Amino acid sequence: MKNEAIYAVLIAFFLNIVISPFAIPLLHRLKFGQNVRDDGPGTHLKKAGTPTMGGIIILFSIVVTSFFFLKGNEAAQTVLFVTVGFGVIGFFDDYIKVVKKRSLGLTAMQKIIAQLIVTCVFAYLLASYVNIDTRIIIPFLGRMTWDLGILYWPFLIFTVLAIVNAVNLTDGIDGLAASVTVLVTTFFTAVALHFQSEAVPAAAATAGSLLGFLLFNSYPAKVFMGDTGSLALGGFVASIAFILQMPLFVVIVGSIYVIENISVILQVAYFKKTKRRLLRMAPIHHHFELGGWPETKVVSVFSIITAIMCLVGLVAL
Amino acid sequence: MKNEAIYAVLIAFFLNIVISPFAIPLLHRLKFGQNVRDDGPGTHLKKAGTPTMGGIIILFSIVVTSFFFLKGNEAAQTVLFVTVGFGVIGFFDDYIKVVKKRSLGLTAMQKIIAQLIVTCVFAYLLASYVNIDTRIIIPFLGRMTWDLGILYWPFLIFTVLAIVNAVNLTDGIDGLAASVTVLVTTFFTAVALHFQSEAVPAAAATAGSLLGFLLFNSYPAKVFMGDTGSLALGGFVASIAFILQMPLFVVIVGSIYVIENISVILQVAYFKKTKRRLLRMAPIHHHFELGGWPETKVVSVFSIITAIMCLVGLVAL
Repeated sequence: MKNEAIYAVLIAFFLNIVISPFAIPLLHRLKFGQNVRDDGPGTHLKKAGTPTMGGIIILFSIVVTSFFFLKGNEAAQTVLFVTVGFGVIGFFDDYIKVVKKRSLGLTAMQKIIAQLIVTCVFAYLLASYVNIDTRIIIPFLGRMTWDLGILYWPFLIFTVLAIVNAVNLTDGIDGLAASVTVLVTTFFTAVALHFQSEAVPAAAATAGSLLGFLLFNSYPAKVFMGDTGSLALGGFVASIAFILQMPLFVVIVGSIYVIENISVILQVAYFKKTKRRLLRMAPIHHHFELGGWPETKVVSVFSIITAIMCLVGLVAL
Repeated sequence: MKNEAIYAVLIAFFLNIVISPFAIPLLHRLKFGQNVRDDGPGTHLKKAGTPTMGGIIILFSIVVTSFFFLKGNEAAQTVLFVTVGFGVIGFFDDYIKVVKKRSLGLTAMQKIIAQLIVTCVFAYLLASYVNIDTRIIIPFLGRMTWDLGILYWPFLIFTVLAIVNAVNLTDGIDGLAASVTVLVTTFFTAVALHFQSEAVPAAAATAGSLLGFLLFNSYPAKVFMGDTGSLALGGFVASIAFILQMPLFVVIVGSIYVIENISVILQVAYFKKTKRRLLRMAPIHHHFELGGWPETKVVSVFSIITAIMCLVGLVAL
């Protein structure tokens, strides 16, 4: 199983490297250059024209890699479904931004409904296909589990949506979402291996794909992942966490996602109350950027924090 | 043992974070700003004044962390001796650069003699203290070992010196040596855990220390490791590899070190023969920089290659 995981990483990695030199110019020609949000940091305006929707490359290499391992593997199939499902929502979002020149994509309502549908199908697959029970592991208590019973399902829907949107918010600086998520994915791959979970190849393929994507996405990015990528990664993190009964561990290993999400919530709440800004800009990665950190520094620091929190996650298991 | 390793990582990491805010300004005040080599890329001249000898911080946190684990642990003590031994050589090199304003430090002969002494003591410790035998594992042959017999010792001396100098050459771009080596160290920590080697805490402490150092050393660097750091890391990589009977694996997981070293050898040989340059500048990281890659891109790409080669190393085991 260990070698299967390593091969999945390597296949997805090399697929990504082979595809990207063709896919990136193609995305560029198809005019999938992002209209950089005009409310972002001023320095980001120079990024206008960098092709987005690189998430398509990530998804393609994960899906092709998975073909080698999917047969009869319900857990990996389910993770793949959620990853691709959210990726497709992100794709429509990105596509509308480009074609309709509407810089913010799908309406909030459209997004939430689409995400709810994918999440409910995920819940159905968990219950009736993977045959998972409703227990989750509590961190730091020696793998003690907690049976949520019927509450498991609303908890799942809330948590999946929260994770997906938090990962989505983490995207916004060259290589940030991919760097943080490749570490989180490595954590879940290692744990899945340890548990001998069937989900191993799905996790390993995602890790390999992200590692390959980072060759083109790290500063200065030749391609952005877009919502296609960040929603797909959110779907991956959420689904692998539930398959392994470890949704609570996302708060630990994905602490950057949590901080990004909370920074937006606090910024909005504070502004409503005081009409002043708490951070220079939300999500918090832009706060540090405007404070004078280069993008690459934000990525380094957030990645190092994630690496440390993944170790804490291992202690908590 | 797994938790011991994780605690060693965390202790070394936090020690590094706690010390650095005091040590970096101190190094600056003591005028340990590096005279940036005047034969490096022009853009590096702006780095003049950044304090060097950050390796002292790395060594300090490794040594202090090790105190918790060293008692009666011959393997970890030996790794620590080699790491600190080479670090001290690097320290004198850095110190002479600063005090004597001689930009290249120790003479080549002084360096080689000092390195030979540390290496011979290492060989003695391996033979008579750790009681290691003269076999090494051959990659890709299912852990088949090869008994080098009496040839083990000259092989060891040559290989240690080659590794140390290759790691030394890899230092030269913000965060490069630390990023590559934290991955190599993670590989050896994982393998040491798998083999239940006594060397685990020494490896884990080094990984944690490097992760903490990267917070300050990644682009834009607030501190360089200097030869103090890069020779120490070379000593660490060489000694952990021999303790685990895996010196041949350094060619795989440390392929960046190898490429850096070969780039210098080829550049010199080519120039002697043709009076022309093969690369824009050696070591090869400067070649890419002068070709237009930002420093951060070189670090990302070399780190990703290292991560992949660490996986190949796992397959080879």
